[in-house]
Amino acid sequence: MTGDLPVPSPDSSSLTEFSLIRQFFTRQAVKNSSTRLGIGDDCALLAIPDGYELALTTDTMVENVHFFAGADPEQLGHKLLAVNLSDLAAMGAQPLSVMLALTLPVVDEHWLTAFAKGFLALAERYSVDLIGGDTTSGPLTLTVQAMGLVPRGKALMRSMAKPGDLIFMTGFLGDAGLGLKIKQGYHCNNPDAALMRFNRPDPRVDAGLALRDIATACIDLSDGLAGDLGHILAQSNAGACLDWEALPLSEAVLAYIQDTGDWLMPLTAGDDYELCFTVSPENTAAFEAACQFACKKIGVIESEPGLRLNKSGHIQALQVKAYEHFS
Amino acid sequence: MTGDLPVPSPDSSSLTEFSLIRQFFTRQAVKNSSTRLGIGDDCALLAIPDGYELALTTDTMVENVHFFAGADPEQLGHKLLAVNLSDLAAMGAQPLSVMLALTLPVVDEHWLTAFAKGFLALAERYSVDLIGGDTTSGPLTLTVQAMGLVPRGKALMRSMAKPGDLIFMTGFLGDAGLGLKIKQGYHCNNPDAALMRFNRPDPRVDAGLALRDIATACIDLSDGLAGDLGHILAQSNAGACLDWEALPLSEAVLAYIQDTGDWLMPLTAGDDYELCFTVSPENTAAFEAACQFACKKIGVIESEPGLRLNKSGHIQALQVKAYEHFS
Repeated sequence: MTGDLPVPSPDSSSLTEFSLIRQFFTRQAVKNSSTRLGIGDDCALLAIPDGYELALTTDTMVENVHFFAGADPEQLGHKLLAVNLSDLAAMGAQPLSVMLALTLPVVDEHWLTAFAKGFLALAERYSVDLIGGDTTSGPLTLTVQAMGLVPRGKALMRSMAKPGDLIFMTGFLGDAGLGLKIKQGYHCNNPDAALMRFNRPDPRVDAGLALRDIATACIDLSDGLAGDLGHILAQSNAGACLDWEALPLSEAVLAYIQDTGDWLMPLTAGDDYELCFTVSPENTAAFEAACQFACKKIGVIESEPGLRLNKSGHIQALQVKAYEHFS
Repeated sequence: MTGDLPVPSPDSSSLTEFSLIRQFFTRQAVKNSSTRLGIGDDCALLAIPDGYELALTTDTMVENVHFFAGADPEQLGHKLLAVNLSDLAAMGAQPLSVMLALTLPVVDEHWLTAFAKGFLALAERYSVDLIGGDTTSGPLTLTVQAMGLVPRGKALMRSMAKPGDLIFMTGFLGDAGLGLKIKQGYHCNNPDAALMRFNRPDPRVDAGLALRDIATACIDLSDGLAGDLGHILAQSNAGACLDWEALPLSEAVLAYIQDTGDWLMPLTAGDDYELCFTVSPENTAAFEAACQFACKKIGVIESEPGLRLNKSGHIQALQVKAYEHFS
């Protein structure tokens, strides 16, 4: 814990930094034998089982950047953990534990109760231990670091796609992007599913675990398919061609495209938190026959650099881009 | 990495989220064999050697809360890492790697260059790998998670102090607090040392490692001796009596007390980042004879709860308190 500038408070507050964390976030028992020490000391302690590596990721969400002011705190708590578990899923890692760094403008017990409810419900679902954190005052900024276990050498890398590999993705594309459009004022006849995908993404943990021995490369779709697949292509020194007709688009997204002409939205909008992965051609048939989760073949890895789209037989270059903050 | 609300940028910026991290923070080679995968994938991967546990801590620093607007970015980079390494030191953990979550209002190349210089110089000193992070736009908020290695069962806990144990601390008490007073306008004839302790604390990594087999309990002094020792007392179900005459006070702090009468300052001011630890009476003589780092015996653990101060033979209760944000 860091020291702070403000004047020491001679009267002990009912909600101090330490009691805050305890009151709202430590109502759960430790779930993993790996958790040797949780909240309450200078550090947490993890024991990693033999034959495993620890996967670590961190993601920050900032008010008015990643979520709107006044966003539902229970959904925020869920989403903050979900986007980190999604990174673990993209490595094929089993979620283990998290640390939570909360910067809060005020202590709002109602907000904290709802935020913790959303956060801890998802943690419970995947037996994730909250093992530490830091609580500071300041503009609303939420950072999670998530840890997961993956058998040594089995992690799914972005760099291992090969020309000829087939490209798959889980779930649907662009629903979260449509949810954002709806929040920004777009009228949709059936907004609920798209808003749910934007507000409460489901990390594809089970799919990630199932892909450990199958996928050659994997990434989660946080910044849009074009940009995220672009990372696989850049790190694998390869290109790709996507098949427009094969993209898993919901009826609501198809209606949005028909209505607006904005067919690039599902390719560039972020926040879907589906997995995009590649499978070698010799494994594809067996994979498709045995696959236990919803996914769709959407394209192929090619040796020629760049990302292309086959749309009604016309192949066009797609500029590889992702949402960027600083531009 | 999380998706963001802002509109996608059709023109690729020269400084995107990803190139930012690469440009400023990846100029160092990987130093630890434990680092199986660093920056650039959905997760980093760590391999933990047999017989070791991983210690993890996180600390956030917020502009106008933990540091003043316009603070020197090189010192900030140093301090952000130092306060996290200090938590590792307090567990007796060898620093291994860090993740860095930066929330920045603008991309200021000069600021980032200086910040990275301070951060990476300290990382280099302790062979710490920067293995991942997240860069977001928003109010200046800096979060580090630090990982370290400690032999299984050897971590220094807050909860293991016993009545009769002697209380020690490294270095000097209250110099960082005096540095803060100077920054707030207090006139000091020799301000440099106190300002240096406030701006560029040295984590007591070597002391922490040396204490693994000696100390019964340990904590780092981030929030003030009274509050931090209070955590040891609370978790060890014990009390303590400090000896005022034994406290390691610099000439500058003594002059401040003489000048202002504020003798509580060194006991309650934060940011010293020294280690406070306890040693059993039977080990004390051997420890003092063999000790390779500067430290001083400042008191004793007692069975009676509460924190007391023996000041010129008069024993008075000290209210256990630390800097708190929310009060």
